[in-house]
Amino acid sequence: MSEFWNETVKRLSPYIPGEQPQDRSYIKLNTNENPYPPSPHVFTTLIETISSKLRLYPDPNASLLKNALADYFHLQNNQVFVGNGSDEVLAFCFQAFFGQEGVLLFPDISYSFYRVYCSLFNIQYQEIPLNDAFEITVEDYNRKNSGIILPNPNAPTGKALKRNDIVKLLENNKHAVVVIDEAYVDFGAESAVELIDSYPNLLVVQTFSKSRSLAGLRCGFALGNKHLIEALERIKNSFNSYPLDHFALSGSVSALKDQTYFQHICKQIISTRQSTQNALQALGFRVIDSSANFLFVSHPQHEATYLYQALKEQGILVRHFNQPRISNFLRITIGTDNEMESLLTCLATLLKHKRA
Amino acid sequence: MSEFWNETVKRLSPYIPGEQPQDRSYIKLNTNENPYPPSPHVFTTLIETISSKLRLYPDPNASLLKNALADYFHLQNNQVFVGNGSDEVLAFCFQAFFGQEGVLLFPDISYSFYRVYCSLFNIQYQEIPLNDAFEITVEDYNRKNSGIILPNPNAPTGKALKRNDIVKLLENNKHAVVVIDEAYVDFGAESAVELIDSYPNLLVVQTFSKSRSLAGLRCGFALGNKHLIEALERIKNSFNSYPLDHFALSGSVSALKDQTYFQHICKQIISTRQSTQNALQALGFRVIDSSANFLFVSHPQHEATYLYQALKEQGILVRHFNQPRISNFLRITIGTDNEMESLLTCLATLLKHKRA
Repeated sequence: MSEFWNETVKRLSPYIPGEQPQDRSYIKLNTNENPYPPSPHVFTTLIETISSKLRLYPDPNASLLKNALADYFHLQNNQVFVGNGSDEVLAFCFQAFFGQEGVLLFPDISYSFYRVYCSLFNIQYQEIPLNDAFEITVEDYNRKNSGIILPNPNAPTGKALKRNDIVKLLENNKHAVVVIDEAYVDFGAESAVELIDSYPNLLVVQTFSKSRSLAGLRCGFALGNKHLIEALERIKNSFNSYPLDHFALSGSVSALKDQTYFQHICKQIISTRQSTQNALQALGFRVIDSSANFLFVSHPQHEATYLYQALKEQGILVRHFNQPRISNFLRITIGTDNEMESLLTCLATLLKHKRA
Repeated sequence: MSEFWNETVKRLSPYIPGEQPQDRSYIKLNTNENPYPPSPHVFTTLIETISSKLRLYPDPNASLLKNALADYFHLQNNQVFVGNGSDEVLAFCFQAFFGQEGVLLFPDISYSFYRVYCSLFNIQYQEIPLNDAFEITVEDYNRKNSGIILPNPNAPTGKALKRNDIVKLLENNKHAVVVIDEAYVDFGAESAVELIDSYPNLLVVQTFSKSRSLAGLRCGFALGNKHLIEALERIKNSFNSYPLDHFALSGSVSALKDQTYFQHICKQIISTRQSTQNALQALGFRVIDSSANFLFVSHPQHEATYLYQALKEQGILVRHFNQPRISNFLRITIGTDNEMESLLTCLATLLKHKRA
């Protein structure tokens, strides 16, 4: 700590992202990246972008990308906001909509960055416990609040809410902004986007990092009523005029346009998830039903910390959260069939070895 | 305004960046971009980056870029912070160091984003007037404050402070953070970087957008005492783990390594600035001495708003600020010799025409 830090810096406990180790080559199943490369069209576009005028600032309004997203989701341009990954978009949401009187509500087991944003922007919050099956019960959110945020599907559980449940949540909470964080929605959950025109307080956040294989390009977006979008624009334009560079802008548009490739890789990941779930259950794991590109698993006879460490030593990275209720779980990203085969072989050996 | 906006959103007057018009081709002298492309090495690097794993998150710690900057400036890695353009870096500075009791000081004529950051983070500030020659007088900052920020060279005037003046400022203000915003320093001013090891409260901010011709890639950085850098890391890691994408990371490193090209284009811009200044003075303009890649000019017989509009109609964009004390000035970015020739021809015609 330093005498020059202000109160904000002092109170922070920053988010710790999953490891991106440079020391050796790993099978990386720890940060929910897509195992498949982006659409081939993206590469063509990025090559063209290299000869664009990199000496010039990007379009501060990201018009081409907003147009493409508006077309894709059948919305107006002024219902679309874009940012540097969905993390930046989420940060702006916390800064724009929450922190008034009352508490923000989100699940106790959820994206752990939410707590960090609350600390950064000094927002009071209350965590609503998932039930014992790790499900969100929307009725639990029928209490005084200054806003609600939840991931659908939830992370790190992978459990999804039905659209009808989101409708119930919105019907009971019309007085404050409800953010549905759909980072993983394309892997099998129902999006709330079609509810936007019915609920002026609904904001849906998505990303190009997962289903579009572009974690390395940094592009996320929010969809909602134009007044909510205007609030996000006001924050963004008071913070950084151009958070998306030429490559992020052009590459995202290109990825969005290749619907065939997108559907193909999402379908493949869902199929691999199902076969991996079956195989893990056969090994004795408890596996939470997932609508995301990861599985949340626990073994009754083997500690998660042991498995995490043993897998790492074998060159396989998964994610462990040292948090109440889930400290005996591992979150395993769905990779290629080959990668999952390696994981399963390794786990089978570890379980046998430990038992022996 | 919407019922869902919080107090922060309501009080904001966002920054308005210079136009990036898409309607026609302009000679763009309005946003201080570099008229020359980035180093040829950057293009080679970016082509290689396309075949990197864009599906994976970038290094959240930006280690290679920090190493390169530390080497370049003869600092330790923990004295370097990087962000999405110097605007994001500056925003984090305001969020990390200012807003305690007392007022932040900056010049009345300066980078207008400073006022916007104060509004975003609810920071009390006081603007210290430049003298009549548009100079910063460092003694004016000998007053109670909770921090100081100033650009060197200043924008939009282009006037630079000598390093000795920065030393005086630091000697008289050891109790709070002093940020020197050196976005334009490479065009002829003295950097404060060599003072970093002597003053633990000094933070120097620079960018790849101007002298490195990479406005389109979004990379800025801060250099200072490791405790100040740690504060910025804490804020950044509570906001967005990966603000720099694969291209920004690799392209910046590559640009930094081509010192020959960098020096060549800086020298060229300084030379064009001098010849443009002479020619503008011959046309009767008052031209403030500049150490930046722009000139701040005023004509005793011709209104700045008229000249701005007339130039725009002729396809030449310059910047006009509708602000007290400088509303009759234009800020003109230094382009290529050919571009400045076009500007001067156009201005000569306008002045003659108006007089006739």
